[in-house]
Amino acid sequence: MPGPISSVDGGTITTARGFRAGGTYAGIKTYSDDKMDVGMLLSDAPCAAAGVFTKSSIVSPSVTVNRETLAGGHPVRGLVVNSGIANAGVGEQGYIDAKEMAVIAANALDVRPEEMLVFSTGIIGVELPMTLIKSGVEQITAAGLSESGGNPLARAMMTTDTHSKEVGVSVDIGGVEVRIGGVAKGSGMIHPNMATMLSFVATDAAVEQSLLRQMLPEVADRSLNMLTVDGDSSTNDSLVVLANGAAGNAVITAGTPEAEALRAGLLDVCVRLTRQLARDGEGATHLLVVEVTGARNDEDARIAARTIASSLLVKSAVYGADPNWGRLLAALGRSQAEAVEEKIDLYINGVCIMEAGKPVPFHRDAVVALMRGDEITFRIALNLADGQATAWGCDLTEEYVVINSAYTT
Amino acid sequence: MPGPISSVDGGTITTARGFRAGGTYAGIKTYSDDKMDVGMLLSDAPCAAAGVFTKSSIVSPSVTVNRETLAGGHPVRGLVVNSGIANAGVGEQGYIDAKEMAVIAANALDVRPEEMLVFSTGIIGVELPMTLIKSGVEQITAAGLSESGGNPLARAMMTTDTHSKEVGVSVDIGGVEVRIGGVAKGSGMIHPNMATMLSFVATDAAVEQSLLRQMLPEVADRSLNMLTVDGDSSTNDSLVVLANGAAGNAVITAGTPEAEALRAGLLDVCVRLTRQLARDGEGATHLLVVEVTGARNDEDARIAARTIASSLLVKSAVYGADPNWGRLLAALGRSQAEAVEEKIDLYINGVCIMEAGKPVPFHRDAVVALMRGDEITFRIALNLADGQATAWGCDLTEEYVVINSAYTT
Repeated sequence: MPGPISSVDGGTITTARGFRAGGTYAGIKTYSDDKMDVGMLLSDAPCAAAGVFTKSSIVSPSVTVNRETLAGGHPVRGLVVNSGIANAGVGEQGYIDAKEMAVIAANALDVRPEEMLVFSTGIIGVELPMTLIKSGVEQITAAGLSESGGNPLARAMMTTDTHSKEVGVSVDIGGVEVRIGGVAKGSGMIHPNMATMLSFVATDAAVEQSLLRQMLPEVADRSLNMLTVDGDSSTNDSLVVLANGAAGNAVITAGTPEAEALRAGLLDVCVRLTRQLARDGEGATHLLVVEVTGARNDEDARIAARTIASSLLVKSAVYGADPNWGRLLAALGRSQAEAVEEKIDLYINGVCIMEAGKPVPFHRDAVVALMRGDEITFRIALNLADGQATAWGCDLTEEYVVINSAYTT
Repeated sequence: MPGPISSVDGGTITTARGFRAGGTYAGIKTYSDDKMDVGMLLSDAPCAAAGVFTKSSIVSPSVTVNRETLAGGHPVRGLVVNSGIANAGVGEQGYIDAKEMAVIAANALDVRPEEMLVFSTGIIGVELPMTLIKSGVEQITAAGLSESGGNPLARAMMTTDTHSKEVGVSVDIGGVEVRIGGVAKGSGMIHPNMATMLSFVATDAAVEQSLLRQMLPEVADRSLNMLTVDGDSSTNDSLVVLANGAAGNAVITAGTPEAEALRAGLLDVCVRLTRQLARDGEGATHLLVVEVTGARNDEDARIAARTIASSLLVKSAVYGADPNWGRLLAALGRSQAEAVEEKIDLYINGVCIMEAGKPVPFHRDAVVALMRGDEITFRIALNLADGQATAWGCDLTEEYVVINSAYTT
């Protein structure tokens, strides 16, 4: 391996050893040739598990069931997911269906219901079609889950995503090769309040569950949560990680170099998923990266970066390759992050366009040309202290409006 | 008069007696036949004055100058405004230019600089062209400010606004007819972080300045501030009110029925301006009204209403006349306003589509037809307590993206 973390070609969630997956089309979504809508993941061995869920005050009962499952503290074996219908906004039937979905999957895999996590994504306000869910689960288990099933699982999660999000990496942890893989979906990620962003990460590392649960929120705050707007989360947003120990390493405990290496690996996987999600934002044509440095503290940097990355005017300017930096300044100002105008430097793809609060003459055509590239990076140096953060987003295009103006019709 | 507050046909800011105004084209904006870019307002008599300004941490020096002027506590005589350039993001020159703009206007009107408020709106990062400002002021004063100058003033404030925003009302206050008029501009009001929303209100009521200053923030919080997103404000956002006493009423003091009548009149004018601003949001085709009732308290209701009205997915659904109420629920949930799913009722233009947290079968085609109307009202009854609020917004259209993807180019 060239370094401590290396990307695995064709990597996906089953890049992690000892995990099998599968997906099928059960008829929940409208049919198209490559469409799938039910997926499953199974670990050969019991897993330490951790989860980070939506902060919304209105949550899908599927999230409630997963919170209860994880609160139980016992090992987890796998998960089942459907796309097309979110299992949210349906009254008490949602909880009954989520529990039943775990039972259906557990029975088919010969594990216990409390060892299965359940996820749904899609339209709010429609009950889960349990017969189709059951049919999907049976199709997958009849065909058999496999080590090549990561891609079908990733496809089975998609709603208006234009392609699947998958990543796999190899990490050297104390001389042992550990693998981490992940899949994610999120279509309305330009402003992620639609149901749902779902991310599943699997690793073959052996790790104490308490450490995993301590790590995951930190990792989420520096990756997937920096894709969100103003702390936004949908009714179903979820990130879970399962660790099955198949790598054969000594169990990783807190405060060790091995813990740090695993944390870096998980962060790497989650940042890669975040970038894939941002790039595939509905209607997006550019990946937008906003780096804030020199903030009073990290929290200030996070607020500033997210506010800028979520500004409609900034997003529109990115779409038009328009170096309208006044909008960056306006968004920074309204973020309420501490800023002193005379100290601010702004950069667009490395080109300084404002220094110490004053416009710097720049070659406009050259910057416009840079902004026509695939990825736009705004860097805002506040020059106050050491706080820093990165947010990811995408541009706002006419296509976003077209997609979202008639989603249920 | 039919009631205590009645609308005046063709009302504008000079509907208030003793105020004269004017506007001209000075060459700051690109020329078109009906375009103006410098405007002025003058009261025949000294005015009690109050202002509410942007909460942004990065403000236009024009706002700074106005804050200083109002902090002085002395009477105000009028204001001068230009559109095209915001006087923000230009370093220390911005403060010098804002002070100079007051001097130019005051000299032309033969009043003192500290009696004039100054406003700019437009592109950030370009210095004010002071020669053009001076030329505009001289043109206006040479032609003479007049009682029919409210419309030219309103037009001189416009940036990408498609029409001027003007309102005038007549209020019976203790048997005396008081008039209140207002003008406003705000183009990027779909997400008001562009420079700038400006609203000027004039009244011929006689009122204690301390009372006026106490009233204005309350009025703003129930009108113009409910057009904003998550407390957003631009570098230049301003609402000012001038009261010159020309109505001849006894000076209104706090805690009286007259104070309550004036407050209602000011609120009426500001709500009318808010609705006009929302309806003319960039690219907008529908006015969106979000009413939240039964919240734990008013602040919760405000947060919920604003979050829903600013959701890209809700706005897109309004554009498409798509009764996708799941998005209302998702936005409500992420607003962090207290909500108990089983208690929520949702209405679209008076049609109940969710009751006690469960979808109500509704005639979809009928609701879609209602939503194709000019104005869409979502009412969310939380049924927890008595908190309530209304937010105003507009739909998100492809046109918004087109307008904003190449604003400076």
